[in-house]
Amino acid sequence: MNGQDCIFCKIVSGEIPSAKIYENKNVLAFLDIGPVSSGHTLVIPKSHYQMVHECPADVLSSVAEVLPKIAAAVYGAMEADGYNVLCNNGRAAGQLVNHVHFHIIPRKHSDGVFNSWPAFKYGSGELQQITEKILRHLR
Amino acid sequence: MNGQDCIFCKIVSGEIPSAKIYENKNVLAFLDIGPVSSGHTLVIPKSHYQMVHECPADVLSSVAEVLPKIAAAVYGAMEADGYNVLCNNGRAAGQLVNHVHFHIIPRKHSDGVFNSWPAFKYGSGELQQITEKILRHLR
Repeated sequence: MNGQDCIFCKIVSGEIPSAKIYENKNVLAFLDIGPVSSGHTLVIPKSHYQMVHECPADVLSSVAEVLPKIAAAVYGAMEADGYNVLCNNGRAAGQLVNHVHFHIIPRKHSDGVFNSWPAFKYGSGELQQITEKILRHLR
Repeated sequence: MNGQDCIFCKIVSGEIPSAKIYENKNVLAFLDIGPVSSGHTLVIPKSHYQMVHECPADVLSSVAEVLPKIAAAVYGAMEADGYNVLCNNGRAAGQLVNHVHFHIIPRKHSDGVFNSWPAFKYGSGELQQITEKILRHLR
């Protein structure tokens, strides 16, 4: 499957060049050219799906299978203190390219890259209510 | 494998209760009790590993296999406009519980949950330099 005018599909096909980190039959990893930290890497399935929930299980697991070794290489090479693995799904979540992609973002202590974590507590009964709502949507 | 004094291992064993969303042999999903948005869900492998790069490939792919259907349920139930799938690795990256976990964070347009995306451009030659450095660490 190929997304028409999808920049990541063009990177997969080689039409657009990339700083390639890893490639196998199903997965490609390359450096983000607009990084939020040095070594910021993108890992994508070669087939075109927009969001995680639209991916067949085997497509997403083929990405997951190689994620540990790619993360290890990025983490080690950048001498990072940690890293985020982040997949934004939909514009509302910050997705800019409509081809599912996992950011590996090397982090240093107190680098200030991401600061916001606006955690709150549920009101009485809310946890149970939301659980039931999600369970009704589970197929 | 079990992490001594790991709160998520205790949730897996049932010693600590949770608002369970999904469970199979290898994976558990439950609501985060300190959510950053309503419906914020955690998906974890039952076995204890701290970070993505420490997970055997099959452990991470067992999580990935069920991620689409859990994400679909959370996204649908919360009538979200999008969602982040986020795994923080190490304190520097915001990891608070040392058991690898994937946040599914439902998002609404302009909800302000995460705003920071401090992208920059690499200097001349830097992209190539970093690519080579990461490739040398790839095993």
